[in-house]
Amino acid sequence: MNLKEYLLENNKNLEYEMSMYFKELSYPQVISEGMEYAVLNGGKRIRPNLLLLTLDILGKEKEMGFPTAIGIEMIHSYSLVHDDLPALDNDDYRRGKLTTHKKFGEAQGILIGDSLLTHAFYILTKKNKRYLSPDKIIHIVEKTADYAGINGMIGGQTIDIESEGKKIDLKTLKYIHSHKTGQLLKLPVECGCIIGDATYSQYEALQKYAELLGLAFQIKDDILDVEGDFEKLGKPIGSDTNAEKSTYPSIIGMVESKKLLNKTIEDAKKTILIEFEEDKAQLMLELADYIKDRDK
Amino acid sequence: MNLKEYLLENNKNLEYEMSMYFKELSYPQVISEGMEYAVLNGGKRIRPNLLLLTLDILGKEKEMGFPTAIGIEMIHSYSLVHDDLPALDNDDYRRGKLTTHKKFGEAQGILIGDSLLTHAFYILTKKNKRYLSPDKIIHIVEKTADYAGINGMIGGQTIDIESEGKKIDLKTLKYIHSHKTGQLLKLPVECGCIIGDATYSQYEALQKYAELLGLAFQIKDDILDVEGDFEKLGKPIGSDTNAEKSTYPSIIGMVESKKLLNKTIEDAKKTILIEFEEDKAQLMLELADYIKDRDK
Repeated sequence: MNLKEYLLENNKNLEYEMSMYFKELSYPQVISEGMEYAVLNGGKRIRPNLLLLTLDILGKEKEMGFPTAIGIEMIHSYSLVHDDLPALDNDDYRRGKLTTHKKFGEAQGILIGDSLLTHAFYILTKKNKRYLSPDKIIHIVEKTADYAGINGMIGGQTIDIESEGKKIDLKTLKYIHSHKTGQLLKLPVECGCIIGDATYSQYEALQKYAELLGLAFQIKDDILDVEGDFEKLGKPIGSDTNAEKSTYPSIIGMVESKKLLNKTIEDAKKTILIEFEEDKAQLMLELADYIKDRDK
Repeated sequence: MNLKEYLLENNKNLEYEMSMYFKELSYPQVISEGMEYAVLNGGKRIRPNLLLLTLDILGKEKEMGFPTAIGIEMIHSYSLVHDDLPALDNDDYRRGKLTTHKKFGEAQGILIGDSLLTHAFYILTKKNKRYLSPDKIIHIVEKTADYAGINGMIGGQTIDIESEGKKIDLKTLKYIHSHKTGQLLKLPVECGCIIGDATYSQYEALQKYAELLGLAFQIKDDILDVEGDFEKLGKPIGSDTNAEKSTYPSIIGMVESKKLLNKTIEDAKKTILIEFEEDKAQLMLELADYIKDRDK
């Protein structure tokens, strides 16, 4: 099975499971519909797949990771809903569809985001009990709250907002990316290590891979914002430039950005191959190339 | 010790513990300062005290309940921060101080709220491990996410917003109150029952007490919005009327509202006395009267 088939199959299963979770929620309708709209939005599902890939490479059953994978995806979705709000990025479209607050109203957008974040923790406990020991569940909840909060994603998002219109140095840009995007890409890999009983050296290799992948993901995002295609991205090109955001191309130039992207991807692949055999690692290697070559 | 002394002592201890938790957070400063501003705001701390009172009446050590009490107070605080936002209630003042988004900016207000909500789950796991079994921690996290989310507080908040400017019936008003305010008053009592190993009949009595207290709390809030004192409340009188919100006085009249308040408080006290001896129940009985007689 190649990566494309693998993602397609996983996403089908993940979205089926998600829709089962959403069936349990009905009232108020605007919130349950809004939550589903925000999550079932045709996203690439990189984060949940990273968790499933981690279980695969550790030789463990993927199904054990479903609730955690979905909880993390809900947190990712809430962060997009709140990022798009008028007081933050003020975006009307995401992946070619109206953003959640444009579709359901601004007050509702705030509450739909709050609701997704809160419900993620319900899923992480309630739905994980079938598969995981209490100690593992607590470890996952603690790590999720840590990586998604002030020390993680929200920290990065805050500095990102405060840096708009300012010249920032590479150190600040790295802080923003490693927190705003990086922490929530590391989280599923680390949760996969908890669920799948990774050894310490497996954990170290996988964590490093996830960090490099996060960095590559962000460099590629910055490149696409300059060279991408509106039709494929589903959002306007040049929005970073218009918002006077510092990016890799704006700080180190486009040529260096592409070099750095290639090197980061090669490093990520090497890291995995030190610890795992090539045939077992195949999908993770393909994912790294996919991050580099994606056009959306 | 009477209720006033009891609350004073608990609040001193709770706020000391909270300030220790906040010391662990430093960056980004606007978020750590904003979180502290929103939580250490001179609130009455009804919710954490309900948890400590529950442990007391069950004859258990209060200290075991501190992390959960503080986690719940953080969730209460986040809900106020988001409620005050321009897209929701658009309030500039709370308890005589600038609301969080007025003080720190709207984007920051959204992120400070998100951060408090997220960090609550960190506290509920990380800080509880010292005192509670893994099973109890998971039970608490699950219940908290359930009561604070779409099926609880956010559900009530949503219908409240959607009902503005509309005539609503008593059933809808009850849904709003039992969810928007009620669930987060029941939560600390139920968590106290989990932590303190309540018997089923103790749990039933305490849960009923918390429900009645929540109802009384809301009726009193509605009465104060008509008859209260700006200086004491720290917010404008008549804001419900101005926002065309349905309230107990507007639906059943002021005289009936006061009768219902008295009856609800008497029922709450009776419920406790069926299960607990009067000397042990003393503080809970005083709390019920305090809810009825408060002027802020």
